[in-house]
Amino acid sequence: MFLTRSEYDRGVNTFSPEGRLFQVEYAIEAIKLGSTAIGICTKDSVVLAVEKRITSPMMVPKTVEKIVKVDDHIGCATSGLMADARTLIERARVECQNHWFVYNESMTVESCAQAVSTLAIQFGDSGDGDGASAMSRPFGVAILFAGIENGEPQLWHMDPSGTYIRYSAKAIGSGSEGAQQNLQDKYTPEMTLNDAITLCLNTLKQVMEEKLNETNVELMTMTTTNTNFTMMAEDEVKRLIENLA
Amino acid sequence: MFLTRSEYDRGVNTFSPEGRLFQVEYAIEAIKLGSTAIGICTKDSVVLAVEKRITSPMMVPKTVEKIVKVDDHIGCATSGLMADARTLIERARVECQNHWFVYNESMTVESCAQAVSTLAIQFGDSGDGDGASAMSRPFGVAILFAGIENGEPQLWHMDPSGTYIRYSAKAIGSGSEGAQQNLQDKYTPEMTLNDAITLCLNTLKQVMEEKLNETNVELMTMTTTNTNFTMMAEDEVKRLIENLA
Amino acid sequence: MFLTRSEYDRGVNTFSPEGRLFQVEYAIEAIKLGSTAIGICTKDSVVLAVEKRITSPMMVPKTVEKIVKVDDHIGCATSGLMADARTLIERARVECQNHWFVYNESMTVESCAQAVSTLAIQFGDSGDGDGASAMSRPFGVAILFAGIENGEPQLWHMDPSGTYIRYSAKAIGSGSEGAQQNLQDKYTPEMTLNDAITLCLNTLKQVMEEKLNETNVELMTMTTTNTNFTMMAEDEVKRLIENLA
Amino acid sequence: MFLTRSEYDRGVNTFSPEGRLFQVEYAIEAIKLGSTAIGICTKDSVVLAVEKRITSPMMVPKTVEKIVKVDDHIGCATSGLMADARTLIERARVECQNHWFVYNESMTVESCAQAVSTLAIQFGDSGDGDGASAMSRPFGVAILFAGIENGEPQLWHMDPSGTYIRYSAKAIGSGSEGAQQNLQDKYTPEMTLNDAITLCLNTLKQVMEEKLNETNVELMTMTTTNTNFTMMAEDEVKRLIENLA
Amino acid sequence: MFLTRSEYDRGVNTFSPEGRLFQVEYAIEAIKLGSTAIGICTKDSVVLAVEKRITSPMMVPKTVEKIVKVDDHIGCATSGLMADARTLIERARVECQNHWFVYNESMTVESCAQAVSTLAIQFGDSGDGDGASAMSRPFGVAILFAGIENGEPQLWHMDPSGTYIRYSAKAIGSGSEGAQQNLQDKYTPEMTLNDAITLCLNTLKQVMEEKLNETNVELMTMTTTNTNFTMMAEDEVKRLIENLA
Amino acid sequence: MFLTRSEYDRGVNTFSPEGRLFQVEYAIEAIKLGSTAIGICTKDSVVLAVEKRITSPMMVPKTVEKIVKVDDHIGCATSGLMADARTLIERARVECQNHWFVYNESMTVESCAQAVSTLAIQFGDSGDGDGASAMSRPFGVAILFAGIENGEPQLWHMDPSGTYIRYSAKAIGSGSEGAQQNLQDKYTPEMTLNDAITLCLNTLKQVMEEKLNETNVELMTMTTTNTNFTMMAEDEVKRLIENLA
Amino acid sequence: MFLTRSEYDRGVNTFSPEGRLFQVEYAIEAIKLGSTAIGICTKDSVVLAVEKRITSPMMVPKTVEKIVKVDDHIGCATSGLMADARTLIERARVECQNHWFVYNESMTVESCAQAVSTLAIQFGDSGDGDGASAMSRPFGVAILFAGIENGEPQLWHMDPSGTYIRYSAKAIGSGSEGAQQNLQDKYTPEMTLNDAITLCLNTLKQVMEEKLNETNVELMTMTTTNTNFTMMAEDEVKRLIENLA
Repeated sequence: MFLTRSEYDRGVNTFSPEGRLFQVEYAIEAIKLGSTAIGICTKDSVVLAVEKRITSPMMVPKTVEKIVKVDDHIGCATSGLMADARTLIERARVECQNHWFVYNESMTVESCAQAVSTLAIQFGDSGDGDGASAMSRPFGVAILFAGIENGEPQLWHMDPSGTYIRYSAKAIGSGSEGAQQNLQDKYTPEMTLNDAITLCLNTLKQVMEEKLNETNVELMTMTTTNTNFTMMAEDEVKRLIENLA
Repeated sequence: MFLTRSEYDRGVNTFSPEGRLFQVEYAIEAIKLGSTAIGICTKDSVVLAVEKRITSPMMVPKTVEKIVKVDDHIGCATSGLMADARTLIERARVECQNHWFVYNESMTVESCAQAVSTLAIQFGDSGDGDGASAMSRPFGVAILFAGIENGEPQLWHMDPSGTYIRYSAKAIGSGSEGAQQNLQDKYTPEMTLNDAITLCLNTLKQVMEEKLNETNVELMTMTTTNTNFTMMAEDEVKRLIENLA
Repeated sequence: MFLTRSEYDRGVNTFSPEGRLFQVEYAIEAIKLGSTAIGICTKDSVVLAVEKRITSPMMVPKTVEKIVKVDDHIGCATSGLMADARTLIERARVECQNHWFVYNESMTVESCAQAVSTLAIQFGDSGDGDGASAMSRPFGVAILFAGIENGEPQLWHMDPSGTYIRYSAKAIGSGSEGAQQNLQDKYTPEMTLNDAITLCLNTLKQVMEEKLNETNVELMTMTTTNTNFTMMAEDEVKRLIENLA
Repeated sequence: MFLTRSEYDRGVNTFSPEGRLFQVEYAIEAIKLGSTAIGICTKDSVVLAVEKRITSPMMVPKTVEKIVKVDDHIGCATSGLMADARTLIERARVECQNHWFVYNESMTVESCAQAVSTLAIQFGDSGDGDGASAMSRPFGVAILFAGIENGEPQLWHMDPSGTYIRYSAKAIGSGSEGAQQNLQDKYTPEMTLNDAITLCLNTLKQVMEEKLNETNVELMTMTTTNTNFTMMAEDEVKRLIENLA
Repeated sequence: MFLTRSEYDRGVNTFSPEGRLFQVEYAIEAIKLGSTAIGICTKDSVVLAVEKRITSPMMVPKTVEKIVKVDDHIGCATSGLMADARTLIERARVECQNHWFVYNESMTVESCAQAVSTLAIQFGDSGDGDGASAMSRPFGVAILFAGIENGEPQLWHMDPSGTYIRYSAKAIGSGSEGAQQNLQDKYTPEMTLNDAITLCLNTLKQVMEEKLNETNVELMTMTTTNTNFTMMAEDEVKRLIENLA
Repeated sequence: MFLTRSEYDRGVNTFSPEGRLFQVEYAIEAIKLGSTAIGICTKDSVVLAVEKRITSPMMVPKTVEKIVKVDDHIGCATSGLMADARTLIERARVECQNHWFVYNESMTVESCAQAVSTLAIQFGDSGDGDGASAMSRPFGVAILFAGIENGEPQLWHMDPSGTYIRYSAKAIGSGSEGAQQNLQDKYTPEMTLNDAITLCLNTLKQVMEEKLNETNVELMTMTTTNTNFTMMAEDEVKRLIENLA
Repeated sequence: MFLTRSEYDRGVNTFSPEGRLFQVEYAIEAIKLGSTAIGICTKDSVVLAVEKRITSPMMVPKTVEKIVKVDDHIGCATSGLMADARTLIERARVECQNHWFVYNESMTVESCAQAVSTLAIQFGDSGDGDGASAMSRPFGVAILFAGIENGEPQLWHMDPSGTYIRYSAKAIGSGSEGAQQNLQDKYTPEMTLNDAITLCLNTLKQVMEEKLNETNVELMTMTTTNTNFTMMAEDEVKRLIENLA
C-alpha cells in the first residue's frame, strides 16, 4: 500500500505515512559525520572538549574553531556542518547582546538555547517575521551550550529538530555513541574540575582515530569561581595529555 | 481507474479522489510516535499528566517540558513534534496576554484553543495576513488545554486538523488507545482530585514501557479552589507513585 | 490518445482533456465523508438539523458545533472539513457585520452566500487583492445558509465549486443521497414548523448509523414571528425524538 | 520524434510542438459540459435564451442565474464554470460603471467584451499590473454579450482564448452544435422580436434533454424601443412555450 | 548520450544540448496555424492584406480584426494567437502615443517594432522593471508593421523570437510558404499601388482554401500622398476581386 | 553510480557530479548556431566583420544588424540569440552613458565588457539588487567589443559564462573554428588597417556558405586617427570584395 | 532501502540519508576543473602563484586575471568558476572598504575571509536580509586570501562549503593534489621570500601540462617590509623561470 521511504524523504516538510519528517532525521545524520565534541557539567564547573580534524600539516590548527564564545558567560561546542553552525552561533551572540542591552542582565543558558532553537525550527518557512530569510532545509548541526548562571554550571544540547535539553554530560559527532557510554559510566556530579577534564580527554582518546595532541584537541572551562569563558592554553593541554598516559 | 494512495499523499493541499487530505492524516500519525499525555476534568478540578521520555541518565529530566503554562489559568500538555508544539504554545501565550491587555479579562479556554487552531489550519497558505509566515505543512502535534473558567474546570483537545473539542478525559500520544479505553472505563465526573490523579497515574502505568517514577512522569493540577496552574512537586509525585503499588 | 484521469487530477487548476477540474470534484467528495446536515424552508419557517458524530463518550457533545450563528438573522450548517468551514463562516460573519456597519441594514442571505462563495472560488490564486492570503486548494466543505429576510424564510446551499443556489429543502454530507430523496417525497411548502422539524428528525433517523438522541442531533429554527437564530434546547430535542417513535 | 499530446497539455503556457496551447483548448471543452445558451440579434432587437439545469425539484429555479445584467444596456448569458463566469461578469460590471463615471457615456458592447477579454487572457501571469491577482488557468466559460448601442442591437461572443467576435446568432454550451445549425438555417436579420424569441425556444427545445417549461428556460430581450435589460416574466415564458406546440 | 528533443522542449528557458530553445520554435509553429497575412512595400506605397477566417455565416465579418491601426501612420497585420496579438498591439499603441507626447514627433516604424520586440523577449522573466507582469511563455504571434516614415513606405516583420527585420514583401501564417514564393517571383519595387494590391489578392487567392470575397479578405493601404492608415471599403474590395478573374 | 549527463543538464544552477553547469555549456552551443563574426586588433586599428544571413531576397539587408554602436568609441559584433544580444547591448549603452555622466570621461572597453558580464552572470538569481529582473537562463550570445582607449585599439570577447578576455584576433559563431585558425596563421600586430580588413574578408569567405557580397557582409573600423565607430559604406565593401578575387 | 545517490544530488538543500549535501560536494568538484593556484606563507612574506590557461595565442595573457587585489594589504588567488569568483571578490572589496570607512583601520584577513564566507553560505536562501539576492546554488570557486596583518603574513583558504581555515601553504585547482604534497615536503616557515617563490614555481612546473613561461604564470608577493599587494613584473617572472632550469 505505502511507498518505500524514498518517496517521502526529499521534501523538508513532507510527512511520511508513519508521521516522520525524514529530512530532519537525515540532518541528524549529518552530525554523525562531524568531529566529536563533549560537554561535562559538575556541581561547580562545566567543561567543553572537542576533536579538531587537522587534515593537513599545512593547516594552522588554532583557526579550526569548534569551541566558540557566545558571551562572557556562555560558550558553545558544535558538530556537523560548520556553515550552519556559524549562522546559529551568530544568532546566539546577537540574542545575548540584545538581552543584555534590553534587560541589563545576562541571558540564561536556557534562553540562549531557546533563541537558537527558534531559528533552527523555521526551516522551510518563507521568513521569520523579522524580515530575515529562513533556511530551506533543517540545520545540519548539533550544539552544546555551556555556561554559568547565577553561580550554577549548566550544559544544554540542541539538535537539528530544535529540541534543547539540559544534560549532565553529553557527547555529539561521529564518536558520540561510544563517548556517551563512557561518560555515563564514569560521570558523577561531584567530580572536580580536574576529574571532568580528565574524563573529557580520556573519552576523546577512546573515540578519535588520530592520537591525541595539543593541536587536535581543544578545551574550554568555566567554574563557579571563574565564570568567564576560558580556553585552555595549548601547553596546558599538552601537559594534561602527557599526564593521561 | 484511480491511482493508489501514494500518488496523492505528498502535496499538503491535494485532495485524493475520495476527498481525503493525506498529509493531515500523516501528521496525526506523528502524534502516535510521541509520548503519552492524559487530561482528566472533574466537576471541581482538572489534571494533566504526561510521560517524559528520559532516553539517557545524563539528561536533566525537569528540562524535558511536556506540560507548559500558557497563562495563570491555562496549562497545556502536548504530544508529537516538540518544535511544532513550541510554536503553537507561543501563539497561545501571546493570544492570552493580548486578550487580557485588550479586554482586561482572562481568555476562555475555548478561545485559547480556537486561536491556536486558527494558526494550525493555515498550513500551505502564503501567510496569515498578519505579516507572519505560515507553515508549509500541518503541525505534527496534539494539545490538551486545561483551565478553570469562571470556576468551572475545562479540558479541550486539538489535533493537527485544527479540530478542537471539549472532553471529560482524553489521552494523546503513543499509548493513547489503551489509555483512552481505561479513562472511559473508570471516569466519573464526581471523582475527587485525588481519584483523578490516581487514575492518571494508573493509566500511564499501563501504557508506558518504562517503570513509573518521579522523573519520567509530570503532573499538573488546577482546582476550583486553587485556580492557578500548579505543577506537582517531585517528592509528591514520588509519594503518589509509591502509594499506587 | 488521452492519459487516464490520474494525470490531470492533482493540479488544482489543471483542466482535463474533457474540460473538468478534478480537484474541485474531489473536494466535493470530501463532503460525502462528513456528517449529514439538513435544511428545510417552509412558507413561515426555516429549520437546520445536523448529525453530530460523538466518537467517544468522553467528548462534551455541545462543543461539536455543526450549526453556527452568522448573524442574528442568519445561521449555517456545515459538512466536510471543519477547519475549512470555520474559515468560511468567519468570512460570513465579517461580511454581515461590515454590511450592517456600512449600510445600516441586515445583509440578505443571498449576499452572505455570495460573499462566502467569492472567497471559496479564489483557491489557487496568489491573493484576493485585499492583502489576505488565498487557499491553495478548493475548500472541502458544503454550507447550508438559513435566514429570514424581510419576513421571508430562505435556505441557500453552497458547494466547493462556489455555486450557491436557493433550495426548499436540502441535505448534505454522507447521508445526503437518501436524505434528499426523503425530503423530496415528504416536503410541501405549507408544512408547519413542527412538521418541518419532524421531517428533519425522521430523515436523519433514516440515514444515521447511530441511534438518534439529544446529544448527537442539533436543531436550529427561525420563523417569521421569531426571526432570530434559535438553537433548540436539549430537553426539547429529547422530547421530540421520543415522540418520533 | 515527438511525444504524444499528453506531454504538453498540463502546463497552461506550454506550447506543443505544433504550436498549440492545450489547456486553452481543454477550457473550451469545459463549456461543452455547460448548459446551452442562445443569442439572436435582429435589426431591432436582441434576445438571450438559456437552459437552466434544475437537478432537483427542491431547487428554487429563479436563483439559478444564467442570464445576468451587466449594465442597463448590456446583458450576458454564460455557459461553463459558474465561478469563472461570476469573476468575469464582475469585471464587466466594474468596467461599465467606471466608463460611465469617467466618460459620462455608456460603454459600448464591444468595449465591454474587450475589457472582459483583457482579464481572460492574463491567466498564468503573475498579476495584471493593477495589484489584482491573475488566474493560474484559462477561464472555463463562454459569454454572450447582448446590448443596444446607439439604437443598434448587438450580440458578441467571447471564449476562453479571449477571442471576441460579433455574431448575428450564436449558441454556446452542450447543445451548441445542433443549436448553431438550427439558428443558421432559420435566422434572417429582418425577423421580428417574436420570431426571434420563437426561434430561441424552438432551438432550445431541440437540444435540451428536459421538456421545456417556464422554470428551466429563461429569456432576456432588448429592443430599439425598450433598450433596457428586460427579463421575461415567468408566465409569459409559460405562455410562449405552450404556443410553441 | 543525449536525450531526445522531448526532454528539453517544455521549459521556456531551457537550452537543449545543441543550444536551441524549443518553446520559441514551437511558438513560431503557432503562427503556421494562423490565417495568412501579406505585406508589400513599394517605392511609394505599402499594402497589408489578410485572410479572415469566417467560420460561421452568423459571424459579423468586420469584427474579425486582423489589420489594426497603431497610430495614424502605422498599421499592423497579425497572424497566430489573437490574444497575444492584442497584448503586443496595445504596447505598440502606448509606445507611439508616448513617443509623440515626449518628443512631439511620430515614432518611426522601426522604433515601434523594437518597442514591441522588447516586450516580446521578456517571456520567462519575473517582470519588466516597469511593474508590469511578463509573459510566462513566448508570444505565439507574428506581426507585419506597415508605415510611412518621412515620406518613405516601410514594412517590418517581427516573430516570436523578437527578431524584427525590414522586408520589401512578406507573408505570414498558414499559407506563408507558397505566398512568400509568389511574392518573390512577382515583386518589383517599382510596382504601382494597384499592382501591389493585385499581387496581394492574387497571392491570397492561391493559398486560401475559401473562395476570395469581400468578407474574408481585408486590405489596408498607405501611400506617400495619403500617409494615413486607410482600410479599403468593402465594395472596393469586392470590385477588385471581381476584376482578378 | 552516477546518472548520465541528461539528469543534470536542465536546471540552470545544478552542478553535475563532475562540477559542470551544463546549461551554460549548452548556451555556448547556441552561439555555434549563429552567424560568424570576426574581430582583429592591430597596433593602430581594430576591425569587426560579420556575416549577415539574408534568408530571403525580400529582406532589406541593412536592417539585419550584427554590428552595433555602443558609444562613439566602442562597437560590438554579436553572434547567437539576437534577443539576448539586444538586452546585453542595451546594458552596455546605458553603462557607457552613465559612466560619462558620472565621471565625465569615456568608459574603458574592459569596464564596458565587465558591466555586460555582470548582467550576464546573474541568470537564475531572483534579481540584481537594482529592482531589475534577472534572466532565468544564461544568455545565449557571444560578443566582441572593439574600441579605441587612450589611443590604443582594443578587442575583447565575452561568452555566456560571463568570461571576458582581451584578444588580438577572435572569431565567434558557426564558422569560428576554421576562422580562428586562419586568423592565427595570418595575424601580425603590425598589420595595416587594409591588411586587417582583407584578412577579415578572406576569413569570412572561407567559412561562409554564401558567396560574399556587399549585402551579406558588414565591416566596422576604428583607428588611432579616426577613433569613432565607422561602418564601412556598402560600395566600399563591394569594391573590397571584388579586389579579393 | 535507500535510493542511490542520484536521487538526492540535485536539490541544493536536500540531505541524503547519510546527511550529505551533494550539490556542495559537486561544487567542490568544479574547482578541480579549474587552473592550479598556490599560496605560501613564511615568517616574513606571503606569495601567491597561479597557472593561467592561455588557450589561444591570440589571447592577451595579462587580461586573464587569476590573482586580484582586494585591498592594499589583501590579495586573492581563485580557482573554479570565474563568474562566481568575481561576485565573491567584489563582496570582499566592498567589505574591506566599508571596514576602513567605519572603523578607520584595515580589515583583518580572517574577517575578510569570513565576510566572503557569509555570502557563500547563503545559497538557496531567498535573500540575505540586505535586499541583495542570494545565489540559488553553491559558489563553484575556491579562494586563497593572502595578506599582511600587523606585520604578520597570513594565508587563508575558503571552499564552496564556506569553510575558511588558515594555512602555511595551500594549493587549489586541477593540480592541487600533487602540488599540496610537494608543498608539504618542501615547506618550512623559515623560508626566505626567494625560496617561497622558487617553491611555488617548481610546484606549478610539476603539475601544469604547459611548459612554464612568463605569460602562463603569475606571481604576487607581500612581505613584512613591503606590505602592499605587488604583482611581479613579467620580465622578472621570465628570469625566475629561466633560473629554475
